[in-house]
Amino acid sequence: MPDQNQDQLHAMRHSLAHIMATAIQRLWPQTKFGVGPVVENGFYYDVDLGPDTKVSEDDFNKIEAEMAKVITGNVPFEKSEMPVDEAIAWAQGSHQPYKEELLNDLKRAGTTVAKDLDAAELGTITSGDAAVENVSFYRNGDFTDLCRGPHVESTGKVGAFKLMRVAGAYWRGNEKNAQMQRMYGVAFATPKELRQHLDMLAEAKKRDHRKLGQELDLFVFSDLVGSGLPMFTPRGTVLRDEVAAFSNELRQRHGFQKVWTPHITKKDLYETSGHWAKFKDQLFLVTSQETSDELVMKPMNCPHHTRIYASQPRSYRDLPVRYLETTTDYRDEKTGELGGLNRVRALTQDDSHVFCRQDQIEREIDNLLASASELYGVVGMDLRVRLSYRDDSDAYLGSQELWATTQAQLKQAVIANDLTYFEEEGEAAFYGPKIDFMVTDAIGREFQVATVQLDFVQPERFGLEYTSEDGMPQRPVMIHCALLGSIERFLSVYIEHTAGKFPVWVAPEQVRLISVNQEAVTVNFAAELEQKAIAIGLRITTDNSNESVGKKIRAAELWKVPYTIVVGEKEVAGGDLTPRIRGDLAVAEVAKSYSVDEFFGTIANEAKMRVSKSSL
Amino acid sequence: MPDQNQDQLHAMRHSLAHIMATAIQRLWPQTKFGVGPVVENGFYYDVDLGPDTKVSEDDFNKIEAEMAKVITGNVPFEKSEMPVDEAIAWAQGSHQPYKEELLNDLKRAGTTVAKDLDAAELGTITSGDAAVENVSFYRNGDFTDLCRGPHVESTGKVGAFKLMRVAGAYWRGNEKNAQMQRMYGVAFATPKELRQHLDMLAEAKKRDHRKLGQELDLFVFSDLVGSGLPMFTPRGTVLRDEVAAFSNELRQRHGFQKVWTPHITKKDLYETSGHWAKFKDQLFLVTSQETSDELVMKPMNCPHHTRIYASQPRSYRDLPVRYLETTTDYRDEKTGELGGLNRVRALTQDDSHVFCRQDQIEREIDNLLASASELYGVVGMDLRVRLSYRDDSDAYLGSQELWATTQAQLKQAVIANDLTYFEEEGEAAFYGPKIDFMVTDAIGREFQVATVQLDFVQPERFGLEYTSEDGMPQRPVMIHCALLGSIERFLSVYIEHTAGKFPVWVAPEQVRLISVNQEAVTVNFAAELEQKAIAIGLRITTDNSNESVGKKIRAAELWKVPYTIVVGEKEVAGGDLTPRIRGDLAVAEVAKSYSVDEFFGTIANEAKMRVSKSSL
Repeated sequence: MPDQNQDQLHAMRHSLAHIMATAIQRLWPQTKFGVGPVVENGFYYDVDLGPDTKVSEDDFNKIEAEMAKVITGNVPFEKSEMPVDEAIAWAQGSHQPYKEELLNDLKRAGTTVAKDLDAAELGTITSGDAAVENVSFYRNGDFTDLCRGPHVESTGKVGAFKLMRVAGAYWRGNEKNAQMQRMYGVAFATPKELRQHLDMLAEAKKRDHRKLGQELDLFVFSDLVGSGLPMFTPRGTVLRDEVAAFSNELRQRHGFQKVWTPHITKKDLYETSGHWAKFKDQLFLVTSQETSDELVMKPMNCPHHTRIYASQPRSYRDLPVRYLETTTDYRDEKTGELGGLNRVRALTQDDSHVFCRQDQIEREIDNLLASASELYGVVGMDLRVRLSYRDDSDAYLGSQELWATTQAQLKQAVIANDLTYFEEEGEAAFYGPKIDFMVTDAIGREFQVATVQLDFVQPERFGLEYTSEDGMPQRPVMIHCALLGSIERFLSVYIEHTAGKFPVWVAPEQVRLISVNQEAVTVNFAAELEQKAIAIGLRITTDNSNESVGKKIRAAELWKVPYTIVVGEKEVAGGDLTPRIRGDLAVAEVAKSYSVDEFFGTIANEAKMRVSKSSL
Repeated sequence: MPDQNQDQLHAMRHSLAHIMATAIQRLWPQTKFGVGPVVENGFYYDVDLGPDTKVSEDDFNKIEAEMAKVITGNVPFEKSEMPVDEAIAWAQGSHQPYKEELLNDLKRAGTTVAKDLDAAELGTITSGDAAVENVSFYRNGDFTDLCRGPHVESTGKVGAFKLMRVAGAYWRGNEKNAQMQRMYGVAFATPKELRQHLDMLAEAKKRDHRKLGQELDLFVFSDLVGSGLPMFTPRGTVLRDEVAAFSNELRQRHGFQKVWTPHITKKDLYETSGHWAKFKDQLFLVTSQETSDELVMKPMNCPHHTRIYASQPRSYRDLPVRYLETTTDYRDEKTGELGGLNRVRALTQDDSHVFCRQDQIEREIDNLLASASELYGVVGMDLRVRLSYRDDSDAYLGSQELWATTQAQLKQAVIANDLTYFEEEGEAAFYGPKIDFMVTDAIGREFQVATVQLDFVQPERFGLEYTSEDGMPQRPVMIHCALLGSIERFLSVYIEHTAGKFPVWVAPEQVRLISVNQEAVTVNFAAELEQKAIAIGLRITTDNSNESVGKKIRAAELWKVPYTIVVGEKEVAGGDLTPRIRGDLAVAEVAKSYSVDEFFGTIANEAKMRVSKSSL
């Protein structure tokens, strides 16, 4: 059973946190311990070695050796319980002030601690705000820790692990508290799985989109412009435009029409939509020096789109009304949370909104899911979806019946599109159920990318209407959907997914011509070829530089250009072209030759069909 | 000589201002007069009839009748001079406090007055800040006015005029001053010219883009979003996208590449560019609540583009580097100055920047002028350009020699492109000479639309470089150019130019199908036709509504749809289609029939070739 395996792996990782702490206590007996939870792929422990002592990565060998001794010793993890006051006395006696603080909090009210720390790592916590009576401890040999468990049976049963890094971390995440050191390790059930994970990390490092962004000249940042505000070079802009055009095209097939709205608005718009009350602290505020208007930068586009919908009377025959807008939203992210394109302050959404009748929801969702399926199929990422439903609480707006019907419509559309899915109650937004898209990239990492979101609330708040067949005013439903999500975030994933080896339809440079020399006849012929390619819409460059052909070929490889053509005497004389095809695209074993028209025509067609392999 | 005619017309208009004042003084003897200058097409006079008296348009007949008497009287305009102190005594004696204030200012320092009022309308002003000694008056019969002249000989020689409107106006444009009434009239040398002008105004009113914007569902405003912030409906977004795509395509042919930059930046960028010192009061300020970053909305794109240029080392071989970006800039315009799309706070520029060597300027300008020529040729507006040069002052940056060479290059490119041009010294920006585009629309109005602007200063301030052939760092020149200028402003002109009858390539709806009935066979056939048209990229709709065919045809006409097809029994049976062609597009006298493929294919081709007449 997968769940049992997961529990077992969780216990291994948690036990390794204790074993790492055991080793650290042996090496630095004065160490004060914070918390040591399980995280994705591993574990960490926050430690304080005293005012003048710090662990560094240079110490990892020593610590791992000490951990190996603990593991070889294979001593049991033994659980015990004691009243919380006794535990506090223990913490004082052991000079563990962080544990003492936790225990005091636990004594007062369990949930206060549970809120800001992973409760699982602490002593037994009774539910609610009730004070705690007993807490549990786990002991392995000479190391005892306040802990709820569970653990593996004995220190020998912890699988394979590796210490990864050490970083500064404020006690309980608050920068006013003491700065501790957070020591991270990864751990898996078998050495093979650990090796696979480490290989994946090494591969991910090579593919880091920030590194590739620089090497392939895709985007740049400037201190003068500010953090989280990328600028895209001509090459990077091709990526943006191509993926956005594809995403738009998919929806335009289903009747979506482009609209355009400005990037700012008076805050009145969000007071009406309700966003102001909820998110006003996370918005960029815009001050007009000429007027008293209080403006903000838009963090989303739906309220603007309702203004276009509401600008005309709508009848049941006009619905669905489907708006599409690729536009940049601004969110005031903390500088520390920004990194490359993964999290930015200027995020461009391939956004869309459907205004429809309730009986049209399933069809609309179906269209959007088909679009998402096709998109993620073409970019070569595995897609699965989460159906996010309401739970039994009263935190949701709209009738129970409406929720039941629409949740069923969402599920029906997911099944009709043959999508891998799972369902989760309590994951819906308060204003409607949704479908979250998750994709797995080429090296096995899963990302949430986009969402299809029903909305019963904004139509209400904005008083949107259509006239039904019997002439009565009715309220439409809104469906929010961005297929890519944020284009910047999508590109951060896609650049790493492809390792910068973009298929022809996305490649900023599809063909590179390399002249064998700088003679006029060669250079002119290359220029002629280039013009021919440009005329049919190809992205092509020519390398006429005074370098050796070998060096120029190597350069084209570094730029990961799909097709490279060496232009020499034979080509100038009217001979066929023999393309060098980038390895990942090539399917034929031997390089073949093509007439100029055939070669360019084939590439243009590959781009148009958005294929991922070469047909040459 | 045209200049003499202009001078004569100016004197006529100015004399009419006096004649209107004469009439007003006769009708309302207590009137206090402000200033009465000549403006485009006519004249105005600011008047104050006292606290409880107001002129209204209902009085225009009465005033015009009184003016006619003055004109029939044909009394001479007589000039006299007197010392300024005597003039002040005259103003006091005549109970003309506004004139008295002007005379007191004139006495102190001529230029102070000249700065905020049209100096030509005032008494003789000696140059510089020197105090004035003598001022001149003009008298016609019973009316005397402080005035520099010149006037026509006598009141009978003033051509044809019409009073147009009356509006509130603060004395000297300052809202802290008294509110006067500004009475406007238009005037021309002949009744025929006046008639033509009034016809043009009537036509302009019919074509008002704000009216057409609503009737043709092109754009909307919302009080919740704010003034000057238009939102474009699906139809209006087609206009935006088509004109921008054309403008981009023209430059992409000349090697321009799209880039992308965010809409905000730290103000540091503009401190470096120098814009902060000059324009900081006209920017929208952006406050980050999460960081201490001081941000602003970009009012232009050049500083961002320098950051992309500077992100890589550039060699002389890499130049010109040509960036293209259609992006929205934000300018904090006063609310009172906003109107429709003509002046907005969110203006989308089809902007571009060339970074080149000095020896490349002429070629680059040549390419841009060729693009502008083609663009305004296709949209059917007459283009003429102004070559704006430096003058002899020392207000310009960059060497005299650089200016002389580059001004000559601009002129050469203008001549090579066979453009109508005129030259003006002193019209250049301090950072470089420029070419201003002026277009004349279908009803004879001239607008300044776009600019090609050389810039020697930003490359300097940002320290931009390239490596010359001999390995030395050199400074590139920047060329700013937007062909359309602001897309919103261009559309305000273009909508009125076309009166909403867009050629096929721009038309939001290119074809409308009208079903003769609601029977399934008809509706299904129309749907089939619609799918065929969509498949080849046409913008088509179908009117299946339960209205008469006549009513549906009338509706298509109101929407100004280029082609309308009535789908009936004959068409369903496989017969040819007989398009109704919008009047302005039609060239053939008789309606012809076409096979489905021929009809759609021809329209698609018309759109692709951007023709302005139908070939059907």
